[in-house]
Amino acid sequence: MSDIEDALKNSVMRNVLKIMAEMPFDSPPPFLSGAIHRLIRELAGIKDPYASVKKKATGTALGMVKSVCKMILKSVDPFEAAVRLSIAGNILDFGVFTRIDNDKIERTVKSALLHDIDAKCLRELKTRALAAKKILFIGDNTGETVFDSLLIERLPAKAVKYAVKSGPVINDATMEDALAAGIDKLAEIIETGSDMPGTILEECSPDFLKIFNESDIVIAKGQANYETLEGCSREIFHLMQVKCPVIARDTGRPVGTWIAEKNKNLQISSRKA
Amino acid sequence: MSDIEDALKNSVMRNVLKIMAEMPFDSPPPFLSGAIHRLIRELAGIKDPYASVKKKATGTALGMVKSVCKMILKSVDPFEAAVRLSIAGNILDFGVFTRIDNDKIERTVKSALLHDIDAKCLRELKTRALAAKKILFIGDNTGETVFDSLLIERLPAKAVKYAVKSGPVINDATMEDALAAGIDKLAEIIETGSDMPGTILEECSPDFLKIFNESDIVIAKGQANYETLEGCSREIFHLMQVKCPVIARDTGRPVGTWIAEKNKNLQISSRKA
Repeated sequence: MSDIEDALKNSVMRNVLKIMAEMPFDSPPPFLSGAIHRLIRELAGIKDPYASVKKKATGTALGMVKSVCKMILKSVDPFEAAVRLSIAGNILDFGVFTRIDNDKIERTVKSALLHDIDAKCLRELKTRALAAKKILFIGDNTGETVFDSLLIERLPAKAVKYAVKSGPVINDATMEDALAAGIDKLAEIIETGSDMPGTILEECSPDFLKIFNESDIVIAKGQANYETLEGCSREIFHLMQVKCPVIARDTGRPVGTWIAEKNKNLQISSRKA
Repeated sequence: MSDIEDALKNSVMRNVLKIMAEMPFDSPPPFLSGAIHRLIRELAGIKDPYASVKKKATGTALGMVKSVCKMILKSVDPFEAAVRLSIAGNILDFGVFTRIDNDKIERTVKSALLHDIDAKCLRELKTRALAAKKILFIGDNTGETVFDSLLIERLPAKAVKYAVKSGPVINDATMEDALAAGIDKLAEIIETGSDMPGTILEECSPDFLKIFNESDIVIAKGQANYETLEGCSREIFHLMQVKCPVIARDTGRPVGTWIAEKNKNLQISSRKA
């Protein structure tokens, strides 16, 4: 799905396999995929190999904004609906699905209000977010960012900082992608300081870490943020879909589950599983 | 899912990645996975690393035989139903699904009579199979073999030779697995001469090739047989489920499609796609 020319793909793949053979297998997956994608960009000589598909994902999401807004406004609890649609947006991930499948996205959006999500956590997120002065919202995929913006609209004005990667990696949102999604009209866009998937705190900038530590609440989207933040010392609200058997095993929830939970609860469930 | 001890798994994986980096990428996938699994067996020092899961798959399938038989007998066209349930059995593949999921298998069996399958091909297969003197039935996964036996029961007595691998590879059925499924009571079990997935004719024994060439019809189960036989010179009836995006692209049919088609028709559709 990358913009890498076909003639280069074989040699890039062979080099990736070679470094994979030497990699530490006990790090969370984002460490490995981050290193692999650094090598891919270097070998292919392309700064953002997934620029085209990312652009398409943002276009797809922007095309759905009107109808998604209507869904939120018509619902009994628009805040909860916005949380659910932000989780729905987590489907915009061609790292998991082999291509952007508009039918799949539409079905996901339509089902957003029906998924079984922890009601207690949704209530706590609502109460605390609406009272918060400093909210750090850590984004995930490009395109998903558009769905996140509909939740940010319902958060206190000027409270939100939206974190993106400092450089392209797979389809993760960067500054450019967040601007294309119009997030700058609703929140301050900040960079993590890293071009690794998820939020690997050792790789993040001091500026980011300061915001991370000082925010009243941190909302983190998607699996890679779960994989890298779940064990950290501060409280995180994870919003994500369980997309692979590894995360299913780790969270104790089947593939397809929608999650709105704090890291501590997830850790407990993981230990129980 | 293998019986390889955990302490060995990392080094086996690293060695697999190293040889993958040197492998030809233009061969059909069974060439690669066959070579990879030869290396895995060698490095792990285990003749059949998937013996336990294979045994479980056969047990699961044998436990369903009674109810599946009833389904076939109660259906309008028991021959067609038996073909459909043989395709249903193709779900017993832990190469695709991460574990043997009894719910998934039961749902697959229950839906067997409802799938959209080429009616013309089913009719031709029925007419020609019932008139055939020599039928080569090339098996695929262990466990699936039990479902195949219900189709073999409806084929002319003594006409069928059921082909299995000459040595263990992934979950493919071997002589031992076919015997555990009771195929020997209905057909002569023969070996391909190879321990590679699918049917790589260059790797097969002269005895197998003679039967392959002289049979009135050849029925081949599953994706690996499609990948290795689709372009061969003789006519093949492929019975399979489309399980991955690569085969979906190649056949022009979406993942989840059930296929009962001759290789020539599949090739035409592949070119159209």
